[in-house]
Amino acid sequence: MLYAPPPHIADMIQTIRQFLREELYPLERIYIPRGFKGAEEALAPLRQKVKKMGLWAPHMPKEYGGLGLSLTEFAYISEELGRSVFGHYVFNSAAPDIGNMELLLAHGSEEQKERWLKPLIAGEIRSCFSMTEPEHAGSNPVWMSTTAVREGDEYVINGHKWFSTSADGAAFTVVMAVTDPDAPKHRRASMIIVPTDNPGFVLEANTPVAGHVGEGYFTHGEVRFVNARVPVSNRIGEEGEGFILAQERLGPGRIHHTMRWIGIAERAFDLMCRYAVQRELAPGDPLSSRQIVRAWIAESRAEIDAARLLVLDTAARIDEQGAYAARNEISEIKFFVAGMLQRVLDRAIQVHGGLGVTDYTPLAYWYGHERAARIYDGADEVHKMVVARRILREYEKHVS
Amino acid sequence: MLYAPPPHIADMIQTIRQFLREELYPLERIYIPRGFKGAEEALAPLRQKVKKMGLWAPHMPKEYGGLGLSLTEFAYISEELGRSVFGHYVFNSAAPDIGNMELLLAHGSEEQKERWLKPLIAGEIRSCFSMTEPEHAGSNPVWMSTTAVREGDEYVINGHKWFSTSADGAAFTVVMAVTDPDAPKHRRASMIIVPTDNPGFVLEANTPVAGHVGEGYFTHGEVRFVNARVPVSNRIGEEGEGFILAQERLGPGRIHHTMRWIGIAERAFDLMCRYAVQRELAPGDPLSSRQIVRAWIAESRAEIDAARLLVLDTAARIDEQGAYAARNEISEIKFFVAGMLQRVLDRAIQVHGGLGVTDYTPLAYWYGHERAARIYDGADEVHKMVVARRILREYEKHVS
Amino acid sequence: MLYAPPPHIADMIQTIRQFLREELYPLERIYIPRGFKGAEEALAPLRQKVKKMGLWAPHMPKEYGGLGLSLTEFAYISEELGRSVFGHYVFNSAAPDIGNMELLLAHGSEEQKERWLKPLIAGEIRSCFSMTEPEHAGSNPVWMSTTAVREGDEYVINGHKWFSTSADGAAFTVVMAVTDPDAPKHRRASMIIVPTDNPGFVLEANTPVAGHVGEGYFTHGEVRFVNARVPVSNRIGEEGEGFILAQERLGPGRIHHTMRWIGIAERAFDLMCRYAVQRELAPGDPLSSRQIVRAWIAESRAEIDAARLLVLDTAARIDEQGAYAARNEISEIKFFVAGMLQRVLDRAIQVHGGLGVTDYTPLAYWYGHERAARIYDGADEVHKMVVARRILREYEKHVS
Amino acid sequence: MLYAPPPHIADMIQTIRQFLREELYPLERIYIPRGFKGAEEALAPLRQKVKKMGLWAPHMPKEYGGLGLSLTEFAYISEELGRSVFGHYVFNSAAPDIGNMELLLAHGSEEQKERWLKPLIAGEIRSCFSMTEPEHAGSNPVWMSTTAVREGDEYVINGHKWFSTSADGAAFTVVMAVTDPDAPKHRRASMIIVPTDNPGFVLEANTPVAGHVGEGYFTHGEVRFVNARVPVSNRIGEEGEGFILAQERLGPGRIHHTMRWIGIAERAFDLMCRYAVQRELAPGDPLSSRQIVRAWIAESRAEIDAARLLVLDTAARIDEQGAYAARNEISEIKFFVAGMLQRVLDRAIQVHGGLGVTDYTPLAYWYGHERAARIYDGADEVHKMVVARRILREYEKHVS
Repeated sequence: MLYAPPPHIADMIQTIRQFLREELYPLERIYIPRGFKGAEEALAPLRQKVKKMGLWAPHMPKEYGGLGLSLTEFAYISEELGRSVFGHYVFNSAAPDIGNMELLLAHGSEEQKERWLKPLIAGEIRSCFSMTEPEHAGSNPVWMSTTAVREGDEYVINGHKWFSTSADGAAFTVVMAVTDPDAPKHRRASMIIVPTDNPGFVLEANTPVAGHVGEGYFTHGEVRFVNARVPVSNRIGEEGEGFILAQERLGPGRIHHTMRWIGIAERAFDLMCRYAVQRELAPGDPLSSRQIVRAWIAESRAEIDAARLLVLDTAARIDEQGAYAARNEISEIKFFVAGMLQRVLDRAIQVHGGLGVTDYTPLAYWYGHERAARIYDGADEVHKMVVARRILREYEKHVS
Repeated sequence: MLYAPPPHIADMIQTIRQFLREELYPLERIYIPRGFKGAEEALAPLRQKVKKMGLWAPHMPKEYGGLGLSLTEFAYISEELGRSVFGHYVFNSAAPDIGNMELLLAHGSEEQKERWLKPLIAGEIRSCFSMTEPEHAGSNPVWMSTTAVREGDEYVINGHKWFSTSADGAAFTVVMAVTDPDAPKHRRASMIIVPTDNPGFVLEANTPVAGHVGEGYFTHGEVRFVNARVPVSNRIGEEGEGFILAQERLGPGRIHHTMRWIGIAERAFDLMCRYAVQRELAPGDPLSSRQIVRAWIAESRAEIDAARLLVLDTAARIDEQGAYAARNEISEIKFFVAGMLQRVLDRAIQVHGGLGVTDYTPLAYWYGHERAARIYDGADEVHKMVVARRILREYEKHVS
Repeated sequence: MLYAPPPHIADMIQTIRQFLREELYPLERIYIPRGFKGAEEALAPLRQKVKKMGLWAPHMPKEYGGLGLSLTEFAYISEELGRSVFGHYVFNSAAPDIGNMELLLAHGSEEQKERWLKPLIAGEIRSCFSMTEPEHAGSNPVWMSTTAVREGDEYVINGHKWFSTSADGAAFTVVMAVTDPDAPKHRRASMIIVPTDNPGFVLEANTPVAGHVGEGYFTHGEVRFVNARVPVSNRIGEEGEGFILAQERLGPGRIHHTMRWIGIAERAFDLMCRYAVQRELAPGDPLSSRQIVRAWIAESRAEIDAARLLVLDTAARIDEQGAYAARNEISEIKFFVAGMLQRVLDRAIQVHGGLGVTDYTPLAYWYGHERAARIYDGADEVHKMVVARRILREYEKHVS
Repeated sequence: MLYAPPPHIADMIQTIRQFLREELYPLERIYIPRGFKGAEEALAPLRQKVKKMGLWAPHMPKEYGGLGLSLTEFAYISEELGRSVFGHYVFNSAAPDIGNMELLLAHGSEEQKERWLKPLIAGEIRSCFSMTEPEHAGSNPVWMSTTAVREGDEYVINGHKWFSTSADGAAFTVVMAVTDPDAPKHRRASMIIVPTDNPGFVLEANTPVAGHVGEGYFTHGEVRFVNARVPVSNRIGEEGEGFILAQERLGPGRIHHTMRWIGIAERAFDLMCRYAVQRELAPGDPLSSRQIVRAWIAESRAEIDAARLLVLDTAARIDEQGAYAARNEISEIKFFVAGMLQRVLDRAIQVHGGLGVTDYTPLAYWYGHERAARIYDGADEVHKMVVARRILREYEKHVS
């Protein structure tokens, strides 16, 4: 079979699934209705437990305290963690930290790794990423107003960002800022680390999203950089490489995200089936007897399975040939999996009836928050255009 | 044209539209992100203003302080009010009060009208409706556990209900309770008024829905009746008529609701078009130049227009021939309009990108909360079965 | 109710329905499987019968032998006729003749009316319309290669056209040809009558469409004009007015077509319900007991009803305010009704199982041939762009 | 990558693709418009050519003259052949022959193999399969009226079948007939070989499907068995095993079919892209510049890729664990791939505009004929119910 996690991963999946079921699922019922107030504290001991279980930061190399999994291996794990709202966070492989870890690991200086990467992997600090600007469409990532002007050995950063997820409580952010406005479009910006205790860093608000402002890790920060001065050595990679690094960050990130979505879909599927056999429409007449419910279950099963294979195929291609060779698949899975996720969540909610729109299951939370899956990291429509353009370019050659 | 509000209604629509734009839209931006904390207080003076404008409770007869509009006339108004999250509430024609007003007007005793209906119309008190039970599927309205046992001149009520919208702060509820468990299925239950200061009435919780617990009017109560004793004179209509009254309540209620959904869709459409021409993907290149955005706009326009005509046709049929004659249309519009609403909201959010999932527009609120449109008052699937059964019954006659 | 045919139309509908059921439905089962071989002959006596019944050419004025119905009145009739593959033809109100009748009635010279219109209405001759060119996208109607060069009192016409429906057996075609290549885009072409016995008119082929080449009326001609000389007096309207006349032709034509599609959908709906109650999945267990089938029936019912109201509203607006005022609706109904038609046909086929793809019901014929409904007279996507552009133009005014 | 044909298969794919492009595609343009008149004769020399190329009957073991490919290996080939309407036929791996070959290979007696299987593989004769009855729903395969009554050493067969594909010109049929009406439902029928020159075998008609009656191989026969006497030794397998053998036939058959559909989808995709870059909407403005066209291309690409992976995963599971272990996937791919096929064909037609509904490309043929993909071998809805039932059974265990 094409879907075949290697045995050590299969074992890990079992352990994680049990841990989630016993430790995390019960907390969802408590902390989602509270808008995540107190969730971080409640999860802290569980993070220690995961460390003791030897499953901490599985995506990181062993020498950094992780498990050294390949992209494909971690893909399976990411799916499993995705089944709980708290999964990735408790295993310290949650966005945006995971992206910053991968970025610093590949492109950070030794000093940066020492100061930021190691405590990040250790879970001692959190981080965020500041790229999207409210004034400009996220779909055009090369159009931005945030600037980092060099003055001696420092950058002076000014700008306005939002969707800086988990900024609240983060120790540092990685900000994307224009360092050379006159360079070619894709060479204008750089990525620079700004500690959040920098006086020029202002967390203006936690943006309310789909009914939740959240708290701590579970927030989306709107931040402002007001003459934030940081040493030039805080830049990651070369000047002007910001966009390239952002692209690179997206490849594995896409696999993590889409597998997380598949995990969400599997959990929704499980909740849907479970509820269908338990809920009665009349004494002795379960919801699962209804043909429409059955059709939704079958369609969801097939759609999830197909989506997973498409992501695993992409991950395998990245592992084998690199992200560049797989760039079309990386775009394909964005919209294909996001679409599947929304349909499965929608069906699961409908099967739950009134309960489905309450916050007593994670379904309504995902329905609201993962609506963004079709928007962030480039709206689905943008990715469709990217895929089509590459395909059509080949055909155009034959015509002319 | 088929769509043609009479001149006095057309004038009213203009007045209301301006009022909403100037007074209510700005408050949405404030109170949705706050989870409706403080919204009631902020809206109180506006309710007075509406009274002074002579537009208060337009669905009620003039002798009761309303405008005496026909169902079709109020349909146009309900659409207009639906454009704001606060519209119906500020004009005192919001569910569940409007349903209770219609119920008491048609079936209340003189005493009930005096004590409950008049202050309700005056906006001095609020009310709620307790029908759905968490233990039983709302899709089967004749299966319920709440009982009202007669002891002398009193009913002793015990039971558990949820989605008792706006229970928090209500002066009374109308509870559906089984008064004769041995009667035929549709004759078992009665509707009984229970003041919320009754010691047997317990508001256990406000159910968190799609990220909001809400406050006051903007809540969904989970309530318990624990030996709640009320005089038999609190019963509305005859014993055993509960289900019939509930059905009756649904006819005009369906028109109000679906027109409100159409109002929501129109507002979403307006926000979508407005944003599309303003938001630039690159300097000078608005989102509205994109073909996919244009397709969504055109499809939404046609779908909204068709949905409105279907509802107006149903309202006209009820006005002309009564709700019974129109019962199939009453079911048809439930799922047809709910489906349209969801598609239009979805497109409007996608056009808004990241902003669309924040609570800075009402779109995400509606996306989460009006997901329930496909569930409450009978899941869409239930209504489809009802429609099909009636149609097929005619065909079956010809076969046998 | 909004849907309310006036009594004389309601009577006519009953008469027509019975005629179709008794006379035309049985012929479908014979002539569709034969690829329409012999259909014209079989229908000839029925056309005489319709004349005797006084229902001939109902869309034409009484003084021309028709019934003088308004656009809205004929809309109801067009739906009814649409229920049979042969309906419009037998009542002599079928495209393309009906379009040519309307064109000649409004813009033909007295001579043209005498020579072409009268026998056309009388059903003594047939006609066709030659506009689409295989070399150019039909979606861009102002881009064409066919030319009519004036030489003295004659036009010399050269060009290549297809989808010249019913060219086979037609007495004349109305060809759209460029008379002034240097004029502004929408003023280049003119409409000119070319008798098919003109030596320069060549019927090259009947284009095979969805498995049928057809015969006579039931064909789509590919025609060529090779130095076809016709007198200048064969031009309809002024020189350069071709595009304007084509647009004008589209308004009422759109009502006729979309109501015909609704008639098809109603027939498919009827076949679906009928089959569902008759066909058993096991002894005593009819297909109609299945929830999915019921959902399709209910969805189809609502979608057809909504589509009809949208068309009737458009027709009423044209009758009241003219086609220009209704131009957005005229585009809306194109894609809205075409989409509905395809969904209803698809469901009806699925309910019929294997029988649904045979030619023993008209469903497969419509499924294949009316797939073109989303293409001809401007692809749906073109109409969506037209609608959106007009809407956005209003919003753009407010922005700038 | 998960999608990775082994090198020898990859080579074969290249050879086949070129052969199809050069030899078969040109014939489609000729024989589809002719309703397949003369197609068999035209293809005969190409079948010889395939033999000489050493690619004949690739699904059969080498000792029988095939290539001995595994199910997964042939899956890749089946996709490739699917790109042409004539592909499988010319390589002698077309249904229904391929199913009969697999059946006889696995369960035929030596005599049957000698007399029927060998000439079938050699392409000297053709065959058909008679299972579906017009009087009974194909979705319930155990309900049939055709009987085979044993008289001495003979069966006397009576019954009525349709969709006996390619009966016209076949040397024999395999008929499913009830041999023991009193046995349990799934043990009532047997499969029996009936030579078509048997006087009791009557080809009543070739059923017109989607506009085509077809000719020879390209037909769907309606056949009648009228006291057809055949020796008991014509039975395949044991008495009462008919249903089991039919099920077994479906497993690999499903892989062949769905990969063929994927081949069709790939061809449609190729035609769509090709046409989009060639066709101009205005001089210098190709259709491919349109965003909606691009979205369709991207969506189709992702959907085809996902569908293929799902089928290959199923094929691999059958190869590794047998058809029983994969029975849920075998049902999943039925409806998942059929749905994808229809969407891709629909988009390809829309991109082609008027040309798309003509028979000058294979698109309209597939659109009409492969509509049956959602119907035959069990309607999609039946397979959804099968999948859901198995899934829910597991959940039911936990509940009770």
